[in-house]
Amino acid sequence: MDVRVQAEKAERFRKLHGGPRILALPNAWDVASARILEEAGYPAIATSSAGVAFSLGYPDGQRVSRDQMLEVVGRIALAVRVPVTADMESGYGTTVKDMVETAKAMIAAGAIGMNLEDVTGDDESSHVGLPLQVEKIRAIRETASSAGVTLVLNARTDIYLMPIGEAATRFERTVELLVSPGCPSLAELEKMGVARASAGSAVMRATLGLVRRIATEWMESGTYNSLFDGAVPFAELNRMMGRQIS
Amino acid sequence: MDVRVQAEKAERFRKLHGGPRILALPNAWDVASARILEEAGYPAIATSSAGVAFSLGYPDGQRVSRDQMLEVVGRIALAVRVPVTADMESGYGTTVKDMVETAKAMIAAGAIGMNLEDVTGDDESSHVGLPLQVEKIRAIRETASSAGVTLVLNARTDIYLMPIGEAATRFERTVELLVSPGCPSLAELEKMGVARASAGSAVMRATLGLVRRIATEWMESGTYNSLFDGAVPFAELNRMMGRQIS
Repeated sequence: MDVRVQAEKAERFRKLHGGPRILALPNAWDVASARILEEAGYPAIATSSAGVAFSLGYPDGQRVSRDQMLEVVGRIALAVRVPVTADMESGYGTTVKDMVETAKAMIAAGAIGMNLEDVTGDDESSHVGLPLQVEKIRAIRETASSAGVTLVLNARTDIYLMPIGEAATRFERTVELLVSPGCPSLAELEKMGVARASAGSAVMRATLGLVRRIATEWMESGTYNSLFDGAVPFAELNRMMGRQIS
Repeated sequence: MDVRVQAEKAERFRKLHGGPRILALPNAWDVASARILEEAGYPAIATSSAGVAFSLGYPDGQRVSRDQMLEVVGRIALAVRVPVTADMESGYGTTVKDMVETAKAMIAAGAIGMNLEDVTGDDESSHVGLPLQVEKIRAIRETASSAGVTLVLNARTDIYLMPIGEAATRFERTVELLVSPGCPSLAELEKMGVARASAGSAVMRATLGLVRRIATEWMESGTYNSLFDGAVPFAELNRMMGRQIS
């Protein structure tokens, strides 16, 4: 991707966090889901790392490699016109040097934003201490800037919100809110001042629930209601996938 | 995959075409969809070439490469215990030599069956004449047999059913029936003597219809009914994907 286009996309994406509207992003996990979301009118595509992992046959939690994750992210970034932000778990590595590699590869893949968690594994011991996490974020941000893109960094923590002082000028403070059953509506979240909400793997998990219902209906009654009720027509999807990007 | 295991899977899959029950296979396009179908109790997984293509961002019709298609097929074959049959369009190539390469790569990917169409492109001129198609089928079958696997070949034609004479002993004659809206139920198809029915890309297109409904609901009402109503829980899916195979 042309670095000026990519830089412009990053800037456009950053501004979407400034309100007054909440930035609500259902997440994609492959090109088809990304295109559907883009055509539905979403101003950006956020990937779900768990969704990508499930699609490739891995559980969540950095079982996929950086290359596998970015292959999917890159495919999506090439296939849509809107900015693409990548859920990169805890960055696919443990060291600051790893983060530099990750940032380079992300920019090369065409992403303009990323989620970075501060837990690298399944248990509490894998929580990254604040000083190292700040160093990692700084390295990612500087690597991206050197490549010409002011990456929109969404730093997540399961333990505490990072204290923001002088660093507030250096990275985004957006706290992404994952919607869950029983969660206030997007309109209510917007009133509460939430900048951004996403679905994580929930969209993908909803589609797999439908696959299961279709499969069960075939087995139990041999009918096709859940299969054909609301499917995107073949010709429409074929056109959508055949669309040329710039 | 151990070639004896693969040969046994091919044999098991072939027998599923012998009745009295119809072999009804909703199609998968990634590991997650394949695992859902396997866990729903299906005795085999059939891939949808259009589904795989859409997921990767291509229209249908051999726009993906043989390698791209078989990367997905191979990932699925490694991730499920049941036999996997691959929709391979018209074999990703035009010559008999191409078919030999395709057959070798398919066996290496762990597939035990394949669909082969006799149309290589979008228009009528791309229809493969019967003598060449028979030669292709023979080459695929012999290549697979040499590798130790009696591949279950589902030779499809849009123009006419292939006349089966002496060749009947050399390849499967299964005519796969693609279910469509208004189609008789699976029980009725079974009574009619249909050996096998599948959904092509319809399952995948049904899930994309759901993605669109979720996306529209978020935009129009800011609520999450279509998102959470029937989604597979995260923990369940994570366990399913973490399951070790053999």
